[in-house]
Amino acid sequence: MKSPAGLLLSAIELDRASAIPLYRQLYLQIRKQILNGRIQGGVRLPSTRTLSNELGLSRITILNAFDQLIAEGFLASRTGAGTYVGTEWESRGSEDEQPRQPPRLSDLSQSMLSLRSDHFRGVSYADWAPSTPTSFLPSHSTYDAFPQAIWRRLMNRYLLKPTKAILGYGELQGLQAFRTAIAEYVFDARGIDCDAGQVVIVSGAQQAFNLLGMLLLNPQDSVWMEDPGHIAARIALQAQGAQVVALRIDDQGIDVQQGLAECPDARLVFCTPSRQHPLGVTLSYARRQALVDWAAQHQSWIIEDDCDSEFRYSGRLLPALYAMDQMARVIYVGTFSKVLFPSLRLGYVILPQALVEPFCTLRAVMDRSPPTLLQATTADFMGEGHFLGHIRRMRALYKARQQALIEQLEKQIGGFFRITPADAGMHLIAWLPPELSDTDIARQLARHNIHTYALSDYRIKHALPPALLIGFAGTPENLARERVEALALALRALGYLPSPS
Amino acid sequence: MKSPAGLLLSAIELDRASAIPLYRQLYLQIRKQILNGRIQGGVRLPSTRTLSNELGLSRITILNAFDQLIAEGFLASRTGAGTYVGTEWESRGSEDEQPRQPPRLSDLSQSMLSLRSDHFRGVSYADWAPSTPTSFLPSHSTYDAFPQAIWRRLMNRYLLKPTKAILGYGELQGLQAFRTAIAEYVFDARGIDCDAGQVVIVSGAQQAFNLLGMLLLNPQDSVWMEDPGHIAARIALQAQGAQVVALRIDDQGIDVQQGLAECPDARLVFCTPSRQHPLGVTLSYARRQALVDWAAQHQSWIIEDDCDSEFRYSGRLLPALYAMDQMARVIYVGTFSKVLFPSLRLGYVILPQALVEPFCTLRAVMDRSPPTLLQATTADFMGEGHFLGHIRRMRALYKARQQALIEQLEKQIGGFFRITPADAGMHLIAWLPPELSDTDIARQLARHNIHTYALSDYRIKHALPPALLIGFAGTPENLARERVEALALALRALGYLPSPS
Repeated sequence: MKSPAGLLLSAIELDRASAIPLYRQLYLQIRKQILNGRIQGGVRLPSTRTLSNELGLSRITILNAFDQLIAEGFLASRTGAGTYVGTEWESRGSEDEQPRQPPRLSDLSQSMLSLRSDHFRGVSYADWAPSTPTSFLPSHSTYDAFPQAIWRRLMNRYLLKPTKAILGYGELQGLQAFRTAIAEYVFDARGIDCDAGQVVIVSGAQQAFNLLGMLLLNPQDSVWMEDPGHIAARIALQAQGAQVVALRIDDQGIDVQQGLAECPDARLVFCTPSRQHPLGVTLSYARRQALVDWAAQHQSWIIEDDCDSEFRYSGRLLPALYAMDQMARVIYVGTFSKVLFPSLRLGYVILPQALVEPFCTLRAVMDRSPPTLLQATTADFMGEGHFLGHIRRMRALYKARQQALIEQLEKQIGGFFRITPADAGMHLIAWLPPELSDTDIARQLARHNIHTYALSDYRIKHALPPALLIGFAGTPENLARERVEALALALRALGYLPSPS
Repeated sequence: MKSPAGLLLSAIELDRASAIPLYRQLYLQIRKQILNGRIQGGVRLPSTRTLSNELGLSRITILNAFDQLIAEGFLASRTGAGTYVGTEWESRGSEDEQPRQPPRLSDLSQSMLSLRSDHFRGVSYADWAPSTPTSFLPSHSTYDAFPQAIWRRLMNRYLLKPTKAILGYGELQGLQAFRTAIAEYVFDARGIDCDAGQVVIVSGAQQAFNLLGMLLLNPQDSVWMEDPGHIAARIALQAQGAQVVALRIDDQGIDVQQGLAECPDARLVFCTPSRQHPLGVTLSYARRQALVDWAAQHQSWIIEDDCDSEFRYSGRLLPALYAMDQMARVIYVGTFSKVLFPSLRLGYVILPQALVEPFCTLRAVMDRSPPTLLQATTADFMGEGHFLGHIRRMRALYKARQQALIEQLEKQIGGFFRITPADAGMHLIAWLPPELSDTDIARQLARHNIHTYALSDYRIKHALPPALLIGFAGTPENLARERVEALALALRALGYLPSPS
C-alpha cells in the first residue's frame, strides 16, 4: 500500500503490555494524527486488511477503532469506496509553517510584565523551588514545625460526608464562622474593634492589593509607596495605572512630610506600619497620627499591610493603624501565609463599612470565595486555641533561629557584613561594604545555589547602601553553621572574602 | 469619684462565669474604650482603690490589668499623680460626628458595580444560600452523590506529615502532576493535543476570564460576545474597557457572519461551543471553521469556555474548538466546579505556547497558585480513575433528573411552559407565553423562595422570547413532583396559572 495515511499509520506504536485495549490505543493514535493535522481531511485510509497486516492486529480490533472514529466524525466510510478522514479535518496549514511572531498583548500586561521581570530576574520562582538546598529567602518559613496532626483531625471533621455547606458555592464574603474568629483575633492581638461583617476573606494579601487597586484607583491617581517597599503590592497598584510617589523610610518609618510636600492629594498610601517591609522599622506614633490625619482630611485611603506582625521578638508591638483611625480611612490586610503556611491561600481584608459591599461585588466579578473546607478548618484551628499557641511556638522558634544565624554570620563573615537584627518578621539585613553592588552579589550567590534578596531590588528611586535580605525562619539552629559556611565559601569563591591563609 | 473615665469604667461589665480571667476582661474592655475613643488621651483614671470598689474587684486584679495597659502604652503612670490614658490616644473626633458621604471609588469599579447589580439584582448570592429549599438555579449541582469517602482517603495521604511540597509556595503554573493529569484528560475526552507545559491552574473559570482580559485586551478593543451569553465573563472583559459586539445565537450557534460584517477586526471572541450558555445550542462545524479561520486571519483570540461539556445526554459531543485550531489562536478554559464541586475552586487554562509565560507572569502579580493540597488530591482522583467514573455516574444521574423534572413540568404546568430539553449541561429552558416578562416572573418567584433565572438577564441587545432557566441537577427524582407542585402553587398565587376549579 503506502498511501500517505498508510505511512503514518504504519508508524503507529502499540503497547501490547498496556492495560489500554489495542483498539482503544489505535483509536487514540489515529485520532491524534487527525487532530494534529498529520493525516488530513479527505485522505483515504488503507483497507482494514492492509492495516491488520501492517500493524499485526486482528481486523476486528481495527474495525472497532474505525467504528468509534466514524461515530465521532473523524472518519467517514463511503460504501464500496473505503474509509476517509472526515472533510472537517481539511488542513489549514500546520502551525509550524506560519511565521512565528510574538503575540499581541495588552499594553497593561506588557508594562506589568516588564515591571515584574525587572524585579524578579535574579530570583525567579524556579530558583527557590522546594528543592532549593541553601535558601535564605525572607519568605521561607519552617514547615516541619506545623501541627499537622491537629490540622488533619480538624479537617477530617468536614470530610466525613458531602454537604452543600462545604462543597457548594460558599458565602461570597467568606465563611461566617471564619470571619468571626478573625474579628476576635484581631481585636485581641491587634486592637482592632470590628465586627465579622467588615471582614472579607481573600486568597491572600496579593489578591487583596489587586482588588483594592481596582476598587479605589483611577489611572493617573497618585499613590504614596514606601521606598524601599513591597514590590508585588506596587506592581498591583501600578497595574491600575497608579502614579507612584516614592517616600523615604527613616528611623520612624515612612516620611509623611515628604508626601505632604510632594503630593498632598494622593488617593491612597500603601504602608507596613508594624514592620516596614523590607527595612523592619516600626512606624512611630507621630507618623501614624500624621498618616491618619492626612487620610481623614483628604478623604484618602490607607492600606495597612500587617504581614507577619505576629512574629515580633523585641520592642513593643503597637496596635494596628486601623485601631487609631476614627475616620474609617484605613483598610487592614492580613494573611495566614506566614503564620500558618503559604499554600493555604487564605488572607483577609478588614474594611470600613462603606467599602464592604462594593469590595464584595467587585470580588464576585474577579473570583469566588476560597475553598470552604480550608476556611472552616482554619476557623476551628483559631477557635479551639491552636492558633495562638502555634504563633507563640513559632515566635520562640524563629527568635532562636535568628540568634543562631546571627552568631554564625558574625563569627564567619562578620567583617564583611554589618548585621541589623530584626525586631520582627523573618529576615535580617546584612549591610555590605558601600562600594559593592547587592544585586550583583545576590545574583552571583544564586548561581552558587544560595538564595538571598538584594535590598536595592525593593528600591524605587531613593539611593540605599547595598545590603542583602537574609531569611532566618527556614534555617534550623543546628544547620546555621553549615549554611553560613556554604555562604562564606561562595563569597570566597566569588572573591568577596579573602581565602583563609 | 465619677471622673468622666470613672463613669465609663463603672459601665464595664465583667463576666465572672467566663473562662477569661477577670484582669484580662478588664484589660480588654478598658483598651476597647481607649481604642474607640470613648476614653480619650490624657484623661486621668480613678484610683485602683476607687475602681476596686466600683467594680467589686480586688486591687491586684486591677493592677494586673493596668500593668499590661501601661506596658502597651495605653496608660501612663505618673508617680504620685495617678494613672492617665496615653496621650497618643488624644481624640480626633469620633467617626459618628463626621458627615457620612459615600466613598469615592474608581470609575472602573463604579461601572462594574452597576453592570453587575443590573444583572444580579433579582438573584443575589444570599438568595441561593445553601439553605434555599426549592432552588432551580442552573449552577446548582448535587452534592450528596459526591464520592466523599474516596476523596477523604486520597486527601489524607497528603495530611500525614507537614512537607514543604504541600505547605510551601506551590508551583506558579500549578502542580505538575495535576497539569499532566489534565492534559491526558482533555486529550482523551476533548481531543485536545497539548502538553502539561501549556496547562495553567487557576481558581476557577472566572479568574481565567479576568486574567485573559487583562492579558489580551486594551481599553476600547472590540470583543465578540454571544447574545444571550455568559454574564460574568462579559463583565470581566468589560472591566478591561472592552467594547462588546453582541452576536446573535441561531440553531448553529454564534452568528459569525454578523461579526464579520459588523466588526471583523475584533481582538477576541468569547464563546461556549460545546453547549452555548445559556441556550444550549452546539456550535456547528461550519461555524467552528469560520471562527478559527477568522481568528487566524486577523490574529485574534478565541476564548473557548467548555464549562460542563462533560454532561452531555444526547447528540454528539464534538471535539473542542481548540482541537481544530492549527494556528494557536484558541485558549481553552475548563473548570472542576460543575463536575466535582464549586468550593474546590480549581479550574485550568490551556494556552498556545506563546501565551504561557506572559499569562503565568501576570497571574503571579494577581494571585498565587491554588492550594497544593487540593491540586494533589484532584490529580490522584483523576489519575486513579475515579474522575471518569464520577462523570459517568453524574451524567446518568442528571439525565434521569432532567427527565423526571420535565415529566412533572409537562404534567403540572405544561400548558404554561414550552419546555426545551437540554442535550447537555444542568438546566433546561422553559419558554413563557410571549406577552409575559421573564424577569418579573423570576423575581416574583424568588419572593416565593423559588429560584430560577430569567433568560433575558443573559441578553445583551437582541430581543428574545421570555423564558426561565430551570436547573435540574439539584432536584432528586423523588423530589421532582413536590418541587414542581411548589412552583405551580406559586404561579397560581401570582395569577399566572388558573386556580384549580
